[in-house]
Amino acid sequence: MKLDFNKMGGLVPAVVQDATSGEVLMVAFLNEEAFQKTLETRRMHYFSRSRNKLWMKGETSGHVQEVREVLIDCDEDTALFKVHQVGGAACHTGYNSCFYRRLESDGSLTQIKAERVFDPAQVYGS
Amino acid sequence: MKLDFNKMGGLVPAVVQDATSGEVLMVAFLNEEAFQKTLETRRMHYFSRSRNKLWMKGETSGHVQEVREVLIDCDEDTALFKVHQVGGAACHTGYNSCFYRRLESDGSLTQIKAERVFDPAQVYGS
Repeated sequence: MKLDFNKMGGLVPAVVQDATSGEVLMVAFLNEEAFQKTLETRRMHYFSRSRNKLWMKGETSGHVQEVREVLIDCDEDTALFKVHQVGGAACHTGYNSCFYRRLESDGSLTQIKAERVFDPAQVYGS
Repeated sequence: MKLDFNKMGGLVPAVVQDATSGEVLMVAFLNEEAFQKTLETRRMHYFSRSRNKLWMKGETSGHVQEVREVLIDCDEDTALFKVHQVGGAACHTGYNSCFYRRLESDGSLTQIKAERVFDPAQVYGS
């Protein structure tokens, strides 16, 4: 199997899902190197578009994502990773999932997570 | 709330998840018009990069996706839609999810869905 990195100029989108709860934790992008590193190490690696570099999730915080299962879509241009999230939170804001707000019909956002798992200032420094 | 359509040249990636089972059904892209149509009609609309046009999921097959909940990520550049999939299958191949194959450590793909929900030739014509 060869993932199609051409549709997005060298990147594929990845959905990261909690292997136990099924909750969607985040969406990020991988280039071919990040994909290979992820498969080799069984820890999620991404390509940062803003910093233009490869990074391993958890390299600063220690909150790595251990890969449990990799699923590939019909078009072979998207991957779904089922992971164990060390530290309990995937989002840099401290919430377990990046999707912690609901869009209401009036266009407002409602917070749907009661509590942060960690304090970002303590994990990443202020 | 204003979704950031600038990072990907007018598009945002969307994860579509079964509202009941939590299974990830597909990943696709929305432009601003598709996003507004989806919110207005509560049925998923996408932007096709290959056909360069807006389309409603199910416009050919009748298998529309009814939106139950919309979640927005921390960076406001990705949306997660929890849906009810009419007809039971989100994938044009007839499987309920586009992620019907697992990537094994030797690089091969294993089919993880036993059966198609529908026969694509019957739904879309041959």
